[in-house]
Amino acid sequence: MEKLQATANRIMPVDRSAVEKASLRLDSLTKPQGSLGVLEDIVKQLAGITGNPIPKLGKKSVIVMAGDHGVVEEGVSAFPQEVTPQMVLNFLNGGAAINVLSRHAGANIVCCDIGVATDINHPALIIKKVKYGTNNMTKGPAMSREEAVRAIEAGIEVAEDEISRGADILATGEMGIGNTTPSSAILSAFGCPVEKACGRGTGVDDEGLALKMKAISKALEVNNPDPTDPIDVLSKVGGLEIAGLAGVILTAAANRIPVVIDGFISSAAALVASKIKPASLQYMIASHVSEEPGHKIMLDMLGLYPMLHMKMRLGEGTGAVLAFHIIEAATRIQSEMATFESAGVSRSSSR
Amino acid sequence: MEKLQATANRIMPVDRSAVEKASLRLDSLTKPQGSLGVLEDIVKQLAGITGNPIPKLGKKSVIVMAGDHGVVEEGVSAFPQEVTPQMVLNFLNGGAAINVLSRHAGANIVCCDIGVATDINHPALIIKKVKYGTNNMTKGPAMSREEAVRAIEAGIEVAEDEISRGADILATGEMGIGNTTPSSAILSAFGCPVEKACGRGTGVDDEGLALKMKAISKALEVNNPDPTDPIDVLSKVGGLEIAGLAGVILTAAANRIPVVIDGFISSAAALVASKIKPASLQYMIASHVSEEPGHKIMLDMLGLYPMLHMKMRLGEGTGAVLAFHIIEAATRIQSEMATFESAGVSRSSSR
Repeated sequence: MEKLQATANRIMPVDRSAVEKASLRLDSLTKPQGSLGVLEDIVKQLAGITGNPIPKLGKKSVIVMAGDHGVVEEGVSAFPQEVTPQMVLNFLNGGAAINVLSRHAGANIVCCDIGVATDINHPALIIKKVKYGTNNMTKGPAMSREEAVRAIEAGIEVAEDEISRGADILATGEMGIGNTTPSSAILSAFGCPVEKACGRGTGVDDEGLALKMKAISKALEVNNPDPTDPIDVLSKVGGLEIAGLAGVILTAAANRIPVVIDGFISSAAALVASKIKPASLQYMIASHVSEEPGHKIMLDMLGLYPMLHMKMRLGEGTGAVLAFHIIEAATRIQSEMATFESAGVSRSSSR
Repeated sequence: MEKLQATANRIMPVDRSAVEKASLRLDSLTKPQGSLGVLEDIVKQLAGITGNPIPKLGKKSVIVMAGDHGVVEEGVSAFPQEVTPQMVLNFLNGGAAINVLSRHAGANIVCCDIGVATDINHPALIIKKVKYGTNNMTKGPAMSREEAVRAIEAGIEVAEDEISRGADILATGEMGIGNTTPSSAILSAFGCPVEKACGRGTGVDDEGLALKMKAISKALEVNNPDPTDPIDVLSKVGGLEIAGLAGVILTAAANRIPVVIDGFISSAAALVASKIKPASLQYMIASHVSEEPGHKIMLDMLGLYPMLHMKMRLGEGTGAVLAFHIIEAATRIQSEMATFESAGVSRSSSR
C-alpha cells in the first residue's frame, strides 16, 4: 500500500501557465483559431503535462497486462481461457494486432503476466504474477484487497521501469479472456445499470450476453462493492490486469507523462485510477471509442473525448497505439507551423 | 468534355472476388472476427480497388487545389481574399498545417492554382488557372458550364500526372477564402435545407452566418441549379477548386487507386463526382467529420463513414493526410498479423 500511496501523492495538477503559453502560440499559427480542434487540445494538454509550451514526444511504449478471470466459469466469453496465454505468446512472438500497430507507430511493447492462470515461459515476458487468475466473482470477491493493491503496485513497477528506460508517453493494453465482464461490473459498481454497462465483448451470442448480465448482477449482489472505495470495487468485481493498468496510469501521472487510454477494459482501469486520484485524469488521453456499448458511458464519466471512431473491439492497446501518430502530429503542428507574421499571412477580420 | 467523359467511362466497380479473398484472410487472423472494425473495412475496400487481397500502399500524395470566390463580396468569410494566395505561398514554403501533417504522414503535396484571383509565382506551383476566381453567384452563375468542365479536366490532368509519377493513394485538399459558401450551396442544391447546410466556416460571427445563408439562398434562387445535372450545380453555385477536386476523385477511381476525402469542401467535390459517376464512391475513403455542420449530412448522402472525429475545420487536406497512417495500418494488419493456425491460438467456441 505504501508504493501506491506514494505514487498517488506525487500526482499534481498540470502546469496551467504552460497551457496558456501553448495556447498563445497556437493562436499565432497560420490557421483560423481553434480550427485544428482536438490536435490543439492535445498540444495544450501535453504542454500542461510536460511544462513545455512546445511539447516534444520521443519514446512511446504500450504496456500490455495479461490476467485471467474466474468468472469465465459462468460462460461469459466467446473464447476459451487457454487463449489468454496463447495470445500472450503471440504478443511475444510479434504476430498479434498490437504488434503490427506498435511497429507501425514506432512504439515499444512491454508485456506483463500479472495474473494468467497458467505459467508462460518467454525471455521477454515480465512476470509479476499476483495470482493464477481471479476467483469467480459470482461466488465471492475476485481477489482480496491486499491482492488488488499488489496488482496495482505491480503495474506501478512495470511503468516506473519503462519510464526509467526513457518512455515519454505510455499507452495501456490488456489481454484476458472474459475481461469485459469485470470491466462492465466496475462500471455498474460506479452507478451504471447492468443492462447498459454490458455488451458482447469479443462476440458472445444472445445466450452468452444473458449469462454475462446475470453473472455481473450476481457478483454485485454477492460482493456489494462500495463505490466510494475504488480498491474495494477493484478487488471485489475487478481483474488483475485492470488493477495493473490502474497502476500504470497513476505512475504516468506521477511522472508527468501522458498516458493514452485504449478501449473498454483500459477505461475501467482509468475509472479506478481517477477515483483513487482525480488529478490523474489530467494526464489521460482517450484514443478510440469501441463497439462495447459501455465504453462511451465510461468515457463520459471520465470526461474524456475519443478522437478515433474505428468500431474496434479488440483491446490489447490497439486503439491507443493508433492514436500515437495523431498525438505526435499535434506536437509537430506546434513546433513546425509558420506564424501569421513569419509567413506574411493576413489575420481574420472582425467578421 | 471529352477528357471528363473518357475518365468517367474508365471507372469500373471494384473487384468483388478480391474483397472476398481479403475477408477470408482477415477472418483467419488472431483476433475475434470483425473486431478491428474500420481497419478491416479499409482492407476489404483496398482489396477491391487494387484487386489484391493483401493490398499494399506505397507513395501517398495530397493534391491541394486553390481558387477564389466572387461571393466573398457578400461578406461570407472571416478572412480577406488576399489570404488565398498568401496561404498558397505558405503551402509552397512548407509552413502550413498541411505541410506539417504531410511530412508526418510521409506524403507528397501537389499544389495547384486552378482559379486564384491573382497570379502567384513559385517554381513548385502547378498553374491550371481556368479563371481569376468565380463570379459572384448571387448575381448569376459562378462560372460557365464550359469553365466548370475545364476545371474538372484540370483536376484530371493534375491527378493523372501524380499517378504517373507513382502515387498509390491520393488525398484531396483545398484553399479558397469563402469556399464553405459554394460547398453549402452545392449541398443545398442537392436537397439539404440552407439552414442545415450552412455553418461558420473559418469562424464567421452571427452576422456573417446570416449573410452567408442569405447569399446561398439568393444564389440558388437566381441560378436555379438542376440537381439531376451535377455539372449544372457545379457551374452555377460551385467553385473552381471544388471542380478540380471532383476531377481528382474521378481520376483516382479511373486508375483504380483509393482517394481519401478531406472535410466539407472536399466532400462537396465528392458529392459532385458521385453524381457524375456513382461507381466512383467505391474508391473514396472518408477521413474525418469536421465541425462544419453540413459535413455529416454530406457524408451520410455519400454513405461514407468518417473514422476521425477531430473537431477540425481547417481544410487544406489536413484531415485526409491524418488518415493515411490509419489506412497504412490497415494494410499492415492484413500482411503482418499471424493466423490462428500459425500462432497456435484456439478459435472462438459456439458462444
